[in-house]
Amino acid sequence: MNSQLLIPVTGQGLYDITAQVMAEVRSAAVVDGLATLFIQHTSASLLIQENADPAVQVDLQNWLNRLVVENDPLYTHVEEGPDDMPAHIKSALTAVSLSIPIMQGNLVLGVWQGIYLWEHRHNQSNSRKVVLNIQSG
Amino acid sequence: MNSQLLIPVTGQGLYDITAQVMAEVRSAAVVDGLATLFIQHTSASLLIQENADPAVQVDLQNWLNRLVVENDPLYTHVEEGPDDMPAHIKSALTAVSLSIPIMQGNLVLGVWQGIYLWEHRHNQSNSRKVVLNIQSG
Amino acid sequence: MNSQLLIPVTGQGLYDITAQVMAEVRSAAVVDGLATLFIQHTSASLLIQENADPAVQVDLQNWLNRLVVENDPLYTHVEEGPDDMPAHIKSALTAVSLSIPIMQGNLVLGVWQGIYLWEHRHNQSNSRKVVLNIQSG
Repeated sequence: MNSQLLIPVTGQGLYDITAQVMAEVRSAAVVDGLATLFIQHTSASLLIQENADPAVQVDLQNWLNRLVVENDPLYTHVEEGPDDMPAHIKSALTAVSLSIPIMQGNLVLGVWQGIYLWEHRHNQSNSRKVVLNIQSG
Repeated sequence: MNSQLLIPVTGQGLYDITAQVMAEVRSAAVVDGLATLFIQHTSASLLIQENADPAVQVDLQNWLNRLVVENDPLYTHVEEGPDDMPAHIKSALTAVSLSIPIMQGNLVLGVWQGIYLWEHRHNQSNSRKVVLNIQSG
Repeated sequence: MNSQLLIPVTGQGLYDITAQVMAEVRSAAVVDGLATLFIQHTSASLLIQENADPAVQVDLQNWLNRLVVENDPLYTHVEEGPDDMPAHIKSALTAVSLSIPIMQGNLVLGVWQGIYLWEHRHNQSNSRKVVLNIQSG
């Protein structure tokens, strides 16, 4: 069973999509199974991270921005803006797909785990598209 | 079909869980299918790596520790200890879920591939929890 | 349903395997489902990236080569050549498995997404092996 989630974004950062994914899983009414998320973009990615202290997300973003800098003289793909090639690299270093088992009708997320869409572009205004596949069994 | 694996850890490093996962797969008696591992934590991750020369694991750990240092002045999330924010970053750069096809009742691991839990904390003493989902087909 | 893809490689770089994977998916004749790719090696990996501007692939390769250098004095695993330990690290930072939903008989790849095998060795001459599992549902 597949469904498409539209995730509105307003620039670089982590967007918590846990509730949206959980709602889809519950409406699927699968007792045991596997939920797989796939993001249909190459300048945003998927992440499971701590959902407790917002400082974790700030530090993650700042650390990755320092590792993958803008205006790196190494880049030859520059015509789509200074944040585009960094976004592709960040996407390559993080996840395009994530699979989470379903038990007793719920995702088996750990207590401190949230599901995030990680937007890597500054001026992304179109919603990002994520496809959710749910397998029973 | 889901099962939960408890992985005892005694500090930072790679823990080979291949035999434990293989045993679960065999007991599931699925001929063709898909095994998916999901770790329920954000400061440890999953990894498939070379199982031959232990020096590979040492070098991996040392390289990642140099890339993601402790006591980085960039960090604002510091109250859980100097290894906590690095652990979250390492977790974001590696895998929270892994999927391995099953053929003829066995995981299709390559000859040199082992499955590891990568513990990123120094003083983690509680067992880590990994959920294994097995789909037939 | 499982099948094995053999991917000929001729040294470090990205190899587009999208058409090969799509052909397998079409021959499976699954309307809705999940395709999972798994690479049976620890010095090559899987990647979904932009398929439009070839400069993206050049920049990705050069950026990763700068991050994970050869002949790093940190390495103790050196007997398999200067590109072997870097290849293991690159493999750990990228994907060993990828899952892509199938809708209406096709992979739900975004417009700009291609599937690549990322070869990390310079002199790899044997074909790389990727297993494709297709689940219906």
